Amino acid sequence: MKKVAVIMGSASDLPVVRKAVDTLREFGVPTEVHVFSAHRTPEQAGAFARSARDNGFGVIIAAAGMAAHLAGAMAAGTTLPVIGIPIKSKNLDGVDALLSTVQMPSGIPVATVAIDGSVNAALLSIQILAVEDEGLAQKLAEKRQRDAQKVLDADREIEDALAH
Amino acid sequence: MKKVAVIMGSASDLPVVRKAVDTLREFGVPTEVHVFSAHRTPEQAGAFARSARDNGFGVIIAAAGMAAHLAGAMAAGTTLPVIGIPIKSKNLDGVDALLSTVQMPSGIPVATVAIDGSVNAALLSIQILAVEDEGLAQKLAEKRQRDAQKVLDADREIEDALAH
Amino acid sequence: MKKVAVIMGSASDLPVVRKAVDTLREFGVPTEVHVFSAHRTPEQAGAFARSARDNGFGVIIAAAGMAAHLAGAMAAGTTLPVIGIPIKSKNLDGVDALLSTVQMPSGIPVATVAIDGSVNAALLSIQILAVEDEGLAQKLAEKRQRDAQKVLDADREIEDALAH
Amino acid sequence: MKKVAVIMGSASDLPVVRKAVDTLREFGVPTEVHVFSAHRTPEQAGAFARSARDNGFGVIIAAAGMAAHLAGAMAAGTTLPVIGIPIKSKNLDGVDALLSTVQMPSGIPVATVAIDGSVNAALLSIQILAVEDEGLAQKLAEKRQRDAQKVLDADREIEDALAH
Amino acid sequence: MKKVAVIMGSASDLPVVRKAVDTLREFGVPTEVHVFSAHRTPEQAGAFARSARDNGFGVIIAAAGMAAHLAGAMAAGTTLPVIGIPIKSKNLDGVDALLSTVQMPSGIPVATVAIDGSVNAALLSIQILAVEDEGLAQKLAEKRQRDAQKVLDADREIEDALAH
Amino acid sequence: MKKVAVIMGSASDLPVVRKAVDTLREFGVPTEVHVFSAHRTPEQAGAFARSARDNGFGVIIAAAGMAAHLAGAMAAGTTLPVIGIPIKSKNLDGVDALLSTVQMPSGIPVATVAIDGSVNAALLSIQILAVEDEGLAQKLAEKRQRDAQKVLDADREIEDALAH
Amino acid sequence: MKKVAVIMGSASDLPVVRKAVDTLREFGVPTEVHVFSAHRTPEQAGAFARSARDNGFGVIIAAAGMAAHLAGAMAAGTTLPVIGIPIKSKNLDGVDALLSTVQMPSGIPVATVAIDGSVNAALLSIQILAVEDEGLAQKLAEKRQRDAQKVLDADREIEDALAH
Amino acid sequence: MKKVAVIMGSASDLPVVRKAVDTLREFGVPTEVHVFSAHRTPEQAGAFARSARDNGFGVIIAAAGMAAHLAGAMAAGTTLPVIGIPIKSKNLDGVDALLSTVQMPSGIPVATVAIDGSVNAALLSIQILAVEDEGLAQKLAEKRQRDAQKVLDADREIEDALAH
Repeated sequence: MKKVAVIMGSASDLPVVRKAVDTLREFGVPTEVHVFSAHRTPEQAGAFARSARDNGFGVIIAAAGMAAHLAGAMAAGTTLPVIGIPIKSKNLDGVDALLSTVQMPSGIPVATVAIDGSVNAALLSIQILAVEDEGLAQKLAEKRQRDAQKVLDADREIEDALAH
Repeated sequence: MKKVAVIMGSASDLPVVRKAVDTLREFGVPTEVHVFSAHRTPEQAGAFARSARDNGFGVIIAAAGMAAHLAGAMAAGTTLPVIGIPIKSKNLDGVDALLSTVQMPSGIPVATVAIDGSVNAALLSIQILAVEDEGLAQKLAEKRQRDAQKVLDADREIEDALAH
Repeated sequence: MKKVAVIMGSASDLPVVRKAVDTLREFGVPTEVHVFSAHRTPEQAGAFARSARDNGFGVIIAAAGMAAHLAGAMAAGTTLPVIGIPIKSKNLDGVDALLSTVQMPSGIPVATVAIDGSVNAALLSIQILAVEDEGLAQKLAEKRQRDAQKVLDADREIEDALAH
Repeated sequence: MKKVAVIMGSASDLPVVRKAVDTLREFGVPTEVHVFSAHRTPEQAGAFARSARDNGFGVIIAAAGMAAHLAGAMAAGTTLPVIGIPIKSKNLDGVDALLSTVQMPSGIPVATVAIDGSVNAALLSIQILAVEDEGLAQKLAEKRQRDAQKVLDADREIEDALAH
Repeated sequence: MKKVAVIMGSASDLPVVRKAVDTLREFGVPTEVHVFSAHRTPEQAGAFARSARDNGFGVIIAAAGMAAHLAGAMAAGTTLPVIGIPIKSKNLDGVDALLSTVQMPSGIPVATVAIDGSVNAALLSIQILAVEDEGLAQKLAEKRQRDAQKVLDADREIEDALAH
Repeated sequence: MKKVAVIMGSASDLPVVRKAVDTLREFGVPTEVHVFSAHRTPEQAGAFARSARDNGFGVIIAAAGMAAHLAGAMAAGTTLPVIGIPIKSKNLDGVDALLSTVQMPSGIPVATVAIDGSVNAALLSIQILAVEDEGLAQKLAEKRQRDAQKVLDADREIEDALAH
Repeated sequence: MKKVAVIMGSASDLPVVRKAVDTLREFGVPTEVHVFSAHRTPEQAGAFARSARDNGFGVIIAAAGMAAHLAGAMAAGTTLPVIGIPIKSKNLDGVDALLSTVQMPSGIPVATVAIDGSVNAALLSIQILAVEDEGLAQKLAEKRQRDAQKVLDADREIEDALAH
Repeated sequence: MKKVAVIMGSASDLPVVRKAVDTLREFGVPTEVHVFSAHRTPEQAGAFARSARDNGFGVIIAAAGMAAHLAGAMAAGTTLPVIGIPIKSKNLDGVDALLSTVQMPSGIPVATVAIDGSVNAALLSIQILAVEDEGLAQKLAEKRQRDAQKVLDADREIEDALAH
């Protein structure tokens, strides 16, 4: 199976990003985690992106806050799909990271998920790998069913909850 | 090769969406185009999504404006990757469509590209198919080189342009 | 009397939504509460909406956060009035939910109230039922008078409050 | 049948508002149109709202731009449902009118539709009247079908459109 | 001396508004404080505004949050200067109140100060009264000097502060 | 009668600002118009503000766009009431000018009107002068009546307008 | 004298950027103009930045729109001051470029000017060179005087302009 | 070596601003710290700016919140580079300060850094001084290397961190 790379721009992004890693591990997807900075270690970041396909990766997830250039810098170095997670920082509620990640110029797409949307970034990467992997697709369908069941359970329990 | 579905919420989205279709055709990717509305034809939209994998699709691109639910509705019905194009409408400069598309709840990701970012949506879908397709990956790499060359050419010509 | 359905997209919306339920109960309006997700249980959500009129409902209230598609999904399935409550989530202060709820395309309206505006959603549903129900209209008028009286009382007490 | 009042804050709102009136007339709903200003003729506006129920109205639609207080002023004077249309003005893309209309304090709801959403305001008022009117509900269902058919037709024609 | 009216839309605005009252009292300006709601007690609010000039008021300060119509409603009823204080509520950081207060249509101005800007509202009302009142103008000038002196003192002490 | 100063930050603001001047002249208020820049001629701007009261001014209106510091700079130099008009520039729809004008720190208020709200700035200045001037107050009341009459006339004519 | 580099992300930025080049030429500052893309030619962009100091540059100006990473990418490669010009694109009024440029993480500053603020970017670069260059500082002071004189002239002519 | 002036608009900005001072001291750059207010002590602020070059300063850093005019006021008084730090205040998340600082009119640039971006303001000022100072440039390069090393270290430690 192709690997998924999970890159974060700073170790301080770990509390958000670890949910992506946990999700990937739940699905048994081989995952490699890195801290690269588009601004502090641009050459390592670029080198990783340029060799990612050859190194067996299928998808790159990149998480960064503020003027979040990491996903775009990754996308500039590879034709693998790159998923961007805009991280909410102290100010501006993540709007800066969202716009810096999603508003990519024509030619270099970044697949952007919600602000702090780590779980969805992981699921999207698995969905990409599952295009050609029946087993993964099956696991995704089962998770969908479990998620649906939770909603159905909550629906059944809601009258009780309202009684309290 | 898996097909790419390009869905738009309204025929009025066509001027933006056709750039996605043109790009897919340039790459020789089999493409099917539909107009489905999350609100006016929700059942047809849902049925399409639920059968997309079985019908040979690998990626769904969904374009919609305003309270843009189309991509989310597609994503709810399939575990294939769904790419959302937020369409700019008359008011709010596309911010409504962007947030309605990208801020998906945990469990149902939408890979969101820039407002009116049709070309990137197409390229992203091709990048997804190219994870397991060397030939497509090669074509993507060649397009990257052509795009880079255009920038390098512009760089060479810029002094002339400034003289005018 | 027609019933009011109060639907929330996730059990985590309950702290906000319960104020709507409490208000409906104060007015003696028969109320049914559900957890349905536009994305995780779209078919249950759609089925509920499509059968709501036949099942004796007069109004549907739908509360959701982020890319809040629930009210729109309900509205797509019924010609009953649907009231949307945009729920504030961790990020973006509820702006995402507001725009996803209010900016509906032509043909499928959602009656949107303020962010986290549960009490007003309930009151609006009662006002709708009261168009043809003198008794309910009378109760609404009495609540207005009580609310006005509270303001008048506060006005009388404000000099004291300022003295502290 | 109860009447629907369509109020605009200024005659300059007419190009947007007339679509609401046209929609109401299509459905054969008795409609009365007025220009009242929350700021220039507050007493006439208030008097209209306070007597609206007794004068046979079932719903009030109020359209205004900028610091759009008209719908709120109407809502303050009646317990009939009041629908607010935020009108886009020269600046701020309608955001001022949207927030001034939707962010009503607890106790006085305004059912807000999209910026410049006149058709939906009319449809919502008809949906409200149709809660207790089978004939109107039938007409709404037929319009939904026609709207759906238009999407299905567009879906059939889209390949042709792309060929041009 | 003309009186200043300080009106708040809800008793919950008191923590912010009381700074306005305190400032007016420091300057010895006769002040009357009221709780009136543009939506819950519109007639009392209107009646107060219409009689304010005859009752010896020179300026009205109105503070409200969310869809903050209070200052506009006051301004509609009098040709006295009306100062609006947009109050920050739980959501949207006060942007809703700011736009609802400042974006008044032509003909009915509201003199808007910063979000939660109670002290400035009071000072502005005093500046208005001081146009024709030498004594008040003198007091304002003295406050400006004291404020300037505080800055000059802070400037002198800043090196010490940085040493800690 | 005290004079009103109308200051603009750039001659390019004239198309908006001239409506303020026209309004002041309609009311017979002595008006002086200047172009001063907070950034290009800060000393002239400051000198004007510091001597304005002694030179017979009662109110200063200041109009500027972008990082609109002009009204604040004027306010820093005088205890006369200063009215700020945020001017919409090419970008950002006037939001930059609005926030730069209204969000003044405690101690130095600016009475802010709507974006491009020149007429209201003039009316507000007249309302300030009219606090102690019965004649002006009478003229303002008459204008209010004329404005109200226009709305009432429009209300009477609206059915005709809709027929076209 | 050190050179100033003016880099744009795309030849389509030229209409805005040429004003920077013109300003630099007016001041006789040696200028080199390039088109480099942070995403399409990241290696050329990085190589230019890393060698800029050795190649005799004193300041780099970088202009880009949308998810504007160019200035940040330049700043990552050099310790020379980098000035960012956020370019307004078709959507979002330049807010995306502004936040992508200014919200840089700690360690890698970008000196950001206004949206489309090319002239100021050039002037800022000249001010930086003028810290140690008396002649340039003198020229800047003279331009300031000319700019001030234009405002003073406009001030003298404004009454005439208003007469038309 | 030229000195750097660090000016704050209020002593309450000190917790943010002190990081700028600390950074400058780490680099051994002579620094002078002041509290000046564009509104409360405009003359002292202006006098400081006008004499800054003669007094041996090379760069001015100005930090202010809300309608943040301080950097612009400094820039109006000198042709030295002025760096603006927008300070986040209680409301609006620093957007008001950002726009008031960055959106300067043509002719008077302010080099704006991120909201609360004190460290970057200091680094930018050092980069400006380092254009002509090899020793400082060397120190900056060393800090860049240390920052990069921290990222590389974090990258090595991240798997461990994820294990916890």
